[in-house]
Amino acid sequence: MTLDIKAANREAVERLYRARPAWTGMTTACEALGLTDRTLLHSGPPIGWERMCPIMRGAVMCAIQFEGWAVTPAEAEGLAGSGEIAFAPCHSRGAVAPMAGVISAGTPLIVVEDRANGTAAWSFMGTGPGPQLRFGAHGPEALGRLAWNRDVLAPALQRVLEREGPLDLAAHMAQALAMGDEMHMRNAASTALLAKALAGPLAAVVPEATQLERILRFLTRDNDQFFLTWAMGAAKAAARAIEGIAGCTIVSTMARNGVEFGIRVAGLGDRWFTGPASVVAGSYFPGFTAADANRDVGDSAIMETYGLGGMAMAASPAVTRIVGAKSVTDAIETTRRMGEICVGRNAGFPIGALDWEGTPTGIDIRKVVATEIVPAINTAIAHRDVAVARIIGAGISTPPLEPFVAALVAFGESVDVASAAGGQGR
Amino acid sequence: MTLDIKAANREAVERLYRARPAWTGMTTACEALGLTDRTLLHSGPPIGWERMCPIMRGAVMCAIQFEGWAVTPAEAEGLAGSGEIAFAPCHSRGAVAPMAGVISAGTPLIVVEDRANGTAAWSFMGTGPGPQLRFGAHGPEALGRLAWNRDVLAPALQRVLEREGPLDLAAHMAQALAMGDEMHMRNAASTALLAKALAGPLAAVVPEATQLERILRFLTRDNDQFFLTWAMGAAKAAARAIEGIAGCTIVSTMARNGVEFGIRVAGLGDRWFTGPASVVAGSYFPGFTAADANRDVGDSAIMETYGLGGMAMAASPAVTRIVGAKSVTDAIETTRRMGEICVGRNAGFPIGALDWEGTPTGIDIRKVVATEIVPAINTAIAHRDVAVARIIGAGISTPPLEPFVAALVAFGESVDVASAAGGQGR
Repeated sequence: MTLDIKAANREAVERLYRARPAWTGMTTACEALGLTDRTLLHSGPPIGWERMCPIMRGAVMCAIQFEGWAVTPAEAEGLAGSGEIAFAPCHSRGAVAPMAGVISAGTPLIVVEDRANGTAAWSFMGTGPGPQLRFGAHGPEALGRLAWNRDVLAPALQRVLEREGPLDLAAHMAQALAMGDEMHMRNAASTALLAKALAGPLAAVVPEATQLERILRFLTRDNDQFFLTWAMGAAKAAARAIEGIAGCTIVSTMARNGVEFGIRVAGLGDRWFTGPASVVAGSYFPGFTAADANRDVGDSAIMETYGLGGMAMAASPAVTRIVGAKSVTDAIETTRRMGEICVGRNAGFPIGALDWEGTPTGIDIRKVVATEIVPAINTAIAHRDVAVARIIGAGISTPPLEPFVAALVAFGESVDVASAAGGQGR
Repeated sequence: MTLDIKAANREAVERLYRARPAWTGMTTACEALGLTDRTLLHSGPPIGWERMCPIMRGAVMCAIQFEGWAVTPAEAEGLAGSGEIAFAPCHSRGAVAPMAGVISAGTPLIVVEDRANGTAAWSFMGTGPGPQLRFGAHGPEALGRLAWNRDVLAPALQRVLEREGPLDLAAHMAQALAMGDEMHMRNAASTALLAKALAGPLAAVVPEATQLERILRFLTRDNDQFFLTWAMGAAKAAARAIEGIAGCTIVSTMARNGVEFGIRVAGLGDRWFTGPASVVAGSYFPGFTAADANRDVGDSAIMETYGLGGMAMAASPAVTRIVGAKSVTDAIETTRRMGEICVGRNAGFPIGALDWEGTPTGIDIRKVVATEIVPAINTAIAHRDVAVARIIGAGISTPPLEPFVAALVAFGESVDVASAAGGQGR
């Protein structure tokens, strides 16, 4: 008996298609992930303090102050490099964080559960515009925003969910896709729909008028990417359903830590395959250039892993401008090209511009290697200087081919070993 | 000297392009239009009680009860036919009403002002799903909804505008166009954006929590077409800017009263040119067929007059399904075909799917007659039976060619007369 790769991949995309990730609650990393000791979770593949890029170090310093393990940035920096802090990828715990995002015990997390596949995932919650941990900010404003999320917003959202029940994120994203979001660099519709879903219930559960007004303004003003971390939680919950399918050559994780880009493959367990993180081709806000840009960073490539973001470029004429693509025709071509490296199309995410064809879903490392087409990842671009700590543009990241090649080699080896051992996939 | 039609039409589209209709307040027809006597304004071209279709009669009966001129539907019906009530088109007062809509003295109206062109317009405000005057409903629930709009919602919105200042509807609609609305049969994005703009400020101006929750739920639940009447007010304010341009062959009004379809032309004053209202080709909700449908009705064709709705079909893959069009390719073809009868393209309303080409704007009666292409009007379909009084589907209305021909003949005559009178356009 040999491994039936085709059947394994078919099973994997069927799980991705039937996933119904729903937002079911708010929690903390302490509660949900048991993150009680001095462990910090970071975006991307595994990396230690010594190799982290400056903005991820900034995010670590922010998290350390947020937990009260140190009072000043300098103390936080000293502690981070002392060896007393353990670092692990968010993905190692079923969690995701955007950009240089870091999760600590007290970080409020979005809970996403997919009852169709029996999975769950947790996502860092966006903190709105202005200084943010995800870009490496670690001053009072970034800390204040995290604390407000933890102490005010997250509890209010939890009360809403207790009152209204879960929010079907799959349906929510399908609606937003028909409204020009691709759910990675454009979440204007999904955020508006989220605000729409929450406004009435929030009025019922937040008795204090000033606090209610602040929450509603936060959700509705200059915060068009707010839904991204919900989308990431949904994508992660869906992608977890394919982890461990023996013989499956579909990518279950893509993530970047600002130094390396890494993937994991459904049939290859927790093993990471990495290569250098890309310099992102994009369009920059006035006053910034590619020389200011950090290398590709963040767990948000889980969107492409689930068949959204760059995969769904054709759904979003508006994003073509944001990421500096040439034209809508070009965007449609991108989605078509992504179709060449994917196993199927998710009919649950139909794209109007393609006469309701589904988004390309299930990146097959074999197809990537055979075609040398790598996933197109829509992404924000962070400033590389932790003293600036802000978004400076957006673009399309072209990840290195090497991790896909290395994963395919490892897959081949695992199959040989399995065959030699009597045909049982590891 | 002869009339320079080309220059007149160029001037007209320039006015449509530069229009910046803004929502500046709430008012009543009594206050804004001086509607103090027993006059009722109805959608579409002029029509008296005796020729009105049953659902417009129902709307009249609703308005009469709403004003307290009669207590029961039967009394209202008697009064309506007694000759004591005067009827005039909404358009005769710079106002618009959707479907079989009727405006009376106490009707709360949306105020739209366009400071770029110095115009204003007034629109009936949507009353949400359920029994509605616009479909001919005239029972307690329809009346209750109107009263709630007048007594609760409109005053709250007025307070928001006083606090926040006017809302730029042109920018709002451009955003929604990039999110898949064509602003006639799809207003999902524009309504979400409206709710988003209003939520925070409403929390500040509505102190009573239960009332606030009710308002927020009204704006955000099962009410995706709510923005339509804002869009209509914006389109009307813009279209009013071209009224009276001598030598202009561009349509300034298109409207239907359920019996007749009528147009007015910028260079021909207040004169209506009418033909029979169409049977709408569309898709019906389960349980209904074309045999149940009222003929084409409502002032909402002001959307196409302004270059949105059917003109902007290519912007809205989702609307192609709603109105029963074949495919997205077909929708793009519709917008291209509309380009053949329009004078220009409004760069302020770019369509992503057409690589940001503007919407076809300024319907030229000469082009309509020459090509025999009539405007494609996206529209809701009302049940013809006033006892049912509800929406039963949506479709594309193909208006009769005759009014365009008659208007062109009249235009030719007016030019001859003007030339004979020394070249001065009337």
